[in-house]
Amino acid sequence: MKYNLVTLEIVEELKRICGPKNVFSDEEKMEAYSHDETNAAEYGHMPEVVVTPTTAEEISQIVKLANRELIPITPRGAGSGLSGGAIPIFGGILLSVEKMNKVLDIDYGNMMITTETGIVTNEINNIIKEKGLFYAGYPMSLETCYLGGNIAENAGGGKAVKYGVTGKYIMGMELVTPTGDIVHLGGKLSKDVTGYDLKQLIVGSEGTLGIVTNATIRLTGLPTAKSTLLVLYKTPKDAIDTVPVIMAKGTIPVSMEFMDKLSVQTACEYLNESLPYQQAGAMLLIEVDGTNQEQVELDAEAIGDLCMENGAIEVYVADNYTTQERIWSVRRNIAEAFKVVSPIQSLEDIVVPISAIPDIIPELDRLSEMYDIKIPCYGHAGDGNLHATLVKNPNHTMEHWHEIEAKALRELYQITKKLGGKISGEHGIGVKRKKYMLENMDPVELSLMKGIKKAWDPNYIMNPGKMFDLE
Amino acid sequence: MKYNLVTLEIVEELKRICGPKNVFSDEEKMEAYSHDETNAAEYGHMPEVVVTPTTAEEISQIVKLANRELIPITPRGAGSGLSGGAIPIFGGILLSVEKMNKVLDIDYGNMMITTETGIVTNEINNIIKEKGLFYAGYPMSLETCYLGGNIAENAGGGKAVKYGVTGKYIMGMELVTPTGDIVHLGGKLSKDVTGYDLKQLIVGSEGTLGIVTNATIRLTGLPTAKSTLLVLYKTPKDAIDTVPVIMAKGTIPVSMEFMDKLSVQTACEYLNESLPYQQAGAMLLIEVDGTNQEQVELDAEAIGDLCMENGAIEVYVADNYTTQERIWSVRRNIAEAFKVVSPIQSLEDIVVPISAIPDIIPELDRLSEMYDIKIPCYGHAGDGNLHATLVKNPNHTMEHWHEIEAKALRELYQITKKLGGKISGEHGIGVKRKKYMLENMDPVELSLMKGIKKAWDPNYIMNPGKMFDLE
Repeated sequence: MKYNLVTLEIVEELKRICGPKNVFSDEEKMEAYSHDETNAAEYGHMPEVVVTPTTAEEISQIVKLANRELIPITPRGAGSGLSGGAIPIFGGILLSVEKMNKVLDIDYGNMMITTETGIVTNEINNIIKEKGLFYAGYPMSLETCYLGGNIAENAGGGKAVKYGVTGKYIMGMELVTPTGDIVHLGGKLSKDVTGYDLKQLIVGSEGTLGIVTNATIRLTGLPTAKSTLLVLYKTPKDAIDTVPVIMAKGTIPVSMEFMDKLSVQTACEYLNESLPYQQAGAMLLIEVDGTNQEQVELDAEAIGDLCMENGAIEVYVADNYTTQERIWSVRRNIAEAFKVVSPIQSLEDIVVPISAIPDIIPELDRLSEMYDIKIPCYGHAGDGNLHATLVKNPNHTMEHWHEIEAKALRELYQITKKLGGKISGEHGIGVKRKKYMLENMDPVELSLMKGIKKAWDPNYIMNPGKMFDLE
Repeated sequence: MKYNLVTLEIVEELKRICGPKNVFSDEEKMEAYSHDETNAAEYGHMPEVVVTPTTAEEISQIVKLANRELIPITPRGAGSGLSGGAIPIFGGILLSVEKMNKVLDIDYGNMMITTETGIVTNEINNIIKEKGLFYAGYPMSLETCYLGGNIAENAGGGKAVKYGVTGKYIMGMELVTPTGDIVHLGGKLSKDVTGYDLKQLIVGSEGTLGIVTNATIRLTGLPTAKSTLLVLYKTPKDAIDTVPVIMAKGTIPVSMEFMDKLSVQTACEYLNESLPYQQAGAMLLIEVDGTNQEQVELDAEAIGDLCMENGAIEVYVADNYTTQERIWSVRRNIAEAFKVVSPIQSLEDIVVPISAIPDIIPELDRLSEMYDIKIPCYGHAGDGNLHATLVKNPNHTMEHWHEIEAKALRELYQITKKLGGKISGEHGIGVKRKKYMLENMDPVELSLMKGIKKAWDPNYIMNPGKMFDLE
């Protein structure tokens, strides 16, 4: 694709659309919008102009301008993404929804909240919790990420085993289409078969099919009872082998998080924290919730018994909020800790059928040995979604690392595919996994996706170069 | 659209593709394929040839032939649909999946079943129940409908309040695209953001985007405890007013079915059955389930108390399987009973936000009076999904009825829209509601849908004339 440059005239027109204070193009200020949580050196790219509109109408006008002038638009939430989805790889207009963070409607009768998409995800729960409600679809980065990014990536998090991911909760949305029309999809409805389910197509489409400006989210009753188990194992294999057993025989937990020794140690050092038996080869962090504390504890106990029958060394019950938070904090900070300790790395999020996750661990060991790199692993074992993280060996040159990274990723994805899995369970394709999706996806599926993209975005201006390229 | 006729040569080619016994074109045998559960006189249309292929490969070849010869294809499940979706309104090839009813895989480790789409939906539960598993996404017609039709319509049923509708359980599928390619979408995965979520786009697309030949369904643990309440009210309004109260304050029930007096009486007469206080103005049928009978009974009791505090006359507990089945049988047979007693009718399935359903009942009364027709009402109140049924007044001529039907439907849909609802919650658009969807849908949304259809089905041969027309 050939795009035009953003001229001074276009910057002036953007200022007329959304006000001078919502348009800027000085390099220093734009730098923060040139990368996300992927490696900036590898994936970063500067926009030509950043706009921070405050209404859907302004976004509509910006998108129409971009179509007229053939300028790419990259929509952006908090920039906490892990696949480069919000990076303006062709320059052009970076459109941040950061100033669109108003809650529009809290509807207790229907148990739904409607909010603009620049809201920090955790804010939603802060607002509604006093009414005994909560939104369960949030990802691990809930304290920084925006709802808009969650929708674009169909983000999943630590509660997905029981509660599912973002898409399950998005009942309606306002969308600015790639040609600049404003449309409302879905509604406050439990069921709806009036036409194609376009809103679920938008969820997870990584901003390539339009910009979601507000969304209506289904809420559920806040669980009042909770029990958290930390289960220690000798080896990662022992821990992972238990996961399908619990999923088939136990109460479905809210979370079943896996952490290997290196992941736990790295996060503990980063946080200056210590967990019991930090030297265990692997841990499962299991949470059960409900409305009756006695029942929840019985369920947790039964899961603990299953763990002990299946090779666990020890089961710890985190019986108060502080202990629960300490353990969860370790889990939540693994990614950040690795970024600090081993900044040159590739954080993956392969997903396989639950029964196949025991087959993944020996393959990671094999790749680790073959390429002489560490591959710590942690993640949402109860969803079959594992964060295998390829970490550069300090003894390798950067050139060698890039070579190894590409080869190891390719092999990892092939193994995943062979096990009935996919290359991304929650981080998305973006720029980072584009070539690997191309290698692993049926060309028919790809051509169906491209058909939609071409039909909706004829000038190919909406977040181009993400997920797949058009020929 | 101009289509070509099915010539003798084409019939011969179809016989070569799927064997002579799977192709027929005698009128008598084809008659059964010319209508569904909508009024045959109004919506029925004969196909030119019926094919009953047995593999996806055969379907692929048939679809390629149809594209080459410009002949429309109408895919068909059990023909139990309520919107004309499976009727070959342009003649051409009627493709029935009736011979594709094999279970391909039962995967207890991942709690999923993979089956061809010609299976009768209830069969799935019969097969897995001895393993303590069940599939909760089925519609009320589960004893006759096919899984394929459920997917095409995104069917919902009596358990949707707690368990959701068909789409929630479809994890993967094999699809023959409108151009005859075979593609596998999704998989046995709890999470997947590898590309657009095309399988959820297929669910509910009424066979206009391809033919689903097999599907992988997520199963859940069979609830072992159940409690059923029959709650009597003086008026429909009293009953409906309770619904949002229970949804906001009570345990989420499996079902919360509403039946007005006329619906109950008609079904009871049809079944030669009697329910307690059949003379009550309206009833709610509420079911709660779980794994602990004591807890379930406590939950049901709390809901019963809420009902009594909110205007119920009486709460009956159906405490054994026979009584539960008797009540449910009345509910399930309402549609069939009305078809026998009042064959000239229009069965609707409007859906509104739960908090808005109390506003629907007075509007139905108003329409009933204004047009001098009965409008019995029943349905899935817990989902905001109501089967208002316009019944021809025996004193009216057919001409007058058609006039009234169109006017009253138009008004009903406008009211629904004003309340934040949609014209169909589970029956689909098909032929029956096409013009009304056109009137009520944002043109932008419609053009996005058409964009997909045009991109995927350039010759417009896959179930044309359903949901919307292409210009």
